[in-house]
Amino acid sequence: MASSHKKVVLTGDRPTGPLHLGHYVGSLSQRLVLQEQHDQYVMIADVQALTDNIERAHQVKEWVGQVALDYLAIGLDPNKTTFFIQSLIPQIAELTVYYLDLVTVNRLKRNPTVKTEIQLRGFGDSVPAGFFVYPVSQAADITVVKGEIIPVGEDQLPMIEQTNEIVRSFNRIFNTNVFPEARAQVSSVARLPGTDGKAKMGKSQGNAIFLSDPEDVVVKKVMSMYTDPNHVHVNDPGKVEGNTVFTYLDVFDADKQMVAEMKAHYQRGGLGDVKVKRRLIDVLQAFLTPIRERRALLAQDMSAVMNVMLGGTQKTLVVAERTMQEVREAMHMRY
Amino acid sequence: MASSHKKVVLTGDRPTGPLHLGHYVGSLSQRLVLQEQHDQYVMIADVQALTDNIERAHQVKEWVGQVALDYLAIGLDPNKTTFFIQSLIPQIAELTVYYLDLVTVNRLKRNPTVKTEIQLRGFGDSVPAGFFVYPVSQAADITVVKGEIIPVGEDQLPMIEQTNEIVRSFNRIFNTNVFPEARAQVSSVARLPGTDGKAKMGKSQGNAIFLSDPEDVVVKKVMSMYTDPNHVHVNDPGKVEGNTVFTYLDVFDADKQMVAEMKAHYQRGGLGDVKVKRRLIDVLQAFLTPIRERRALLAQDMSAVMNVMLGGTQKTLVVAERTMQEVREAMHMRY
Repeated sequence: MASSHKKVVLTGDRPTGPLHLGHYVGSLSQRLVLQEQHDQYVMIADVQALTDNIERAHQVKEWVGQVALDYLAIGLDPNKTTFFIQSLIPQIAELTVYYLDLVTVNRLKRNPTVKTEIQLRGFGDSVPAGFFVYPVSQAADITVVKGEIIPVGEDQLPMIEQTNEIVRSFNRIFNTNVFPEARAQVSSVARLPGTDGKAKMGKSQGNAIFLSDPEDVVVKKVMSMYTDPNHVHVNDPGKVEGNTVFTYLDVFDADKQMVAEMKAHYQRGGLGDVKVKRRLIDVLQAFLTPIRERRALLAQDMSAVMNVMLGGTQKTLVVAERTMQEVREAMHMRY
Repeated sequence: MASSHKKVVLTGDRPTGPLHLGHYVGSLSQRLVLQEQHDQYVMIADVQALTDNIERAHQVKEWVGQVALDYLAIGLDPNKTTFFIQSLIPQIAELTVYYLDLVTVNRLKRNPTVKTEIQLRGFGDSVPAGFFVYPVSQAADITVVKGEIIPVGEDQLPMIEQTNEIVRSFNRIFNTNVFPEARAQVSSVARLPGTDGKAKMGKSQGNAIFLSDPEDVVVKKVMSMYTDPNHVHVNDPGKVEGNTVFTYLDVFDADKQMVAEMKAHYQRGGLGDVKVKRRLIDVLQAFLTPIRERRALLAQDMSAVMNVMLGGTQKTLVVAERTMQEVREAMHMRY
C-alpha cells in the first residue's frame, strides 16, 4: 500500500517494437528511481499505438510482449510498479468519450504536439480522428489512475496542459475535486542521439540500439556509428562535440576520468575511432549483458511475463473502476 | 431467444426531457410493431445527450426516468424489447475509440447531418469534439449489438452511411465478418408538426404535446393550436392544408369518414375552429388517457421502472461483451 506522501506516477510506451537505449536514457532509467519513491503505474499503450496505423493491430500483441520483457529485464519490479495494458481498461475509453465533450475541435487543432506529429507523419487533411483526439485519450490515461507526476519530454508539455484543462473543466462543471492536476516532470537528461548522429533514436529510423540486441549486433552497430567525418587518419585531431560515440560514452561510461582522457587524446590526434568504439562496446556490453541474459531467461516463459502484466492490469482495473464510480457520482449519473 | 429470421433492430432517444406526440408518430409507434417482429433494442442515449451540453449531466438521470416511463406507458414490452442505458455499456466507448482510427477528420467535417446540426446549435468553431465525432459513437451504438435494421428519419441517413463505412473498413482490415452492415428503415410517416404549425415538434420549442401532459394541459395546447389564420368567422371558408388541427386529426382520428366530412364542411364554411379542436381533444384524450394512467401507475414505483431498464442493460452487456471479444479476436488483441 502506498503511504500517504507517495504520489501517483504514470508513464508508458506505445508498443510498436522493442525498446532501445534512447528509451532507457530518456525514461526507463527514471522509472527505476521513481518506483522506489512513488506509487508508479507503467502503461503499455496498445490502443494509442493504433491511432496512427490501426492496420498494425495484429502485431501489437507480439510487441506488448517485447515491451513487457524489456520492462522486467531492466529491473522494473512488479512489487513496486503496477503495469497495465491500456486496451484492457475500458474506463479509459469511457473517460475519453466524456472528456471529448469538454474540449473543442479548435482547441485540439491548436495543440502544438499534435500539429507537429501530423506534419511528421504526412497526414495532411486525412489525419485519423483517433490521432487528432489523442491528447484527450492521454488525459483519460492520466486521470483514470489520478496521476499526479507525469515524467515527460519537453515536447510533451502541451499534452499535460491539455490534461489539466480537462481536469479543471471537469472539477469546475461538476463542482468536485475528483481529479488532481498532473505535474509534468521534465527529464533533465539530454536526448540520446541515434547511432547515425541524428537527434532522435527511433525504432523505425534504423539508428537504434535495442535493449534486446545480441552481442554481435551491438558490435556491428557501434562499429558503424557516426563520429567526426573529418577525422580521417588516426593522427588527425578529431572533434568530440557531435561525435555520437563520445556522447554515448558520456552517458554510459561510469569512468568519467577515462572518458576525459580519451576525449583529450582524440582532440589532439592519435586516437583512432576504432579504439573509442571498442571502449564503447565494452561499456555497452557491460550494461546490456545482464539485461540481455535476464530477458532471455524471462522469454522462456512468456505466459508468466504476460501474467505479470495482467496482474497489474487487474489492480489497475480496481482503481479505474473506483475513479469511474466517483466520476458518475460527480456527474449525478449513477443509476 | 430470437429465432433465426429475426433481425436486430436498434433505436433510441436522447434523454433531454419527456417524449411527445412527434416522437410517437415518428418513431415510438413503429417500435410497437417492430418488437413483435424482431429482436429490438431501445437505447436511452444519456452519453450522447451530453455531447452538445455536458453541463446538463445532473439532469440526465431524471430524464432517463421520464423516458423510461414513456416507453413502458405506451406499451413497449420488456419481454419483447431490450432497453439499455448507454452510459452503462462501456463497450460502446471502447468501440468508439477504435473506430476513431478508421475515420479521418475530413470525413467527419463532410458529414451533412453534423454540419447542419453544428449550424443549428450555433457552435461555429467551438464545436465540442464529442459532438463533432458523434457519428462515430453512433456506429459504436449500432454495432455493439450488431444492429441490422435502424429505423431513422430521412435526415439521419448520412449517419447510417458513416456506420457502414466503418463496418466495411473494420471487416476489410481485419479480414473478418464480425459486423453486418446496417440497413436504414426510413419512416414513411410524415413528420408531425408542432402545435404552432412549425415543421418540427421540439421539446424546447414550446410547441409539443407530451405523452405525459395532464388532461387540462392537452385542452389548453389544442385550443391554442395553429389553424388557418384567414378563417376569422365561422361562416368563412377555411383551409385544411397546413391547418395543424386537421393534420393531427389525419394522424390520430380513426374515423376517416368523419374527418373527411369535417374537412369538407370547414372548406365550404360554417364549421368553427373550436368545434374541430374539440374533436381533436376528444381523439387525443382517448389516445393519451390510457398512456397517462399507466404512466401514473408506473411512476409510483420508479425503482421498479429503473430495474426494468437495468435488467435490459444487463442483457445488453452480455451481448456487448461478446461483440468486444469478437472484435479483440479479429484485431488479434486478446491477451
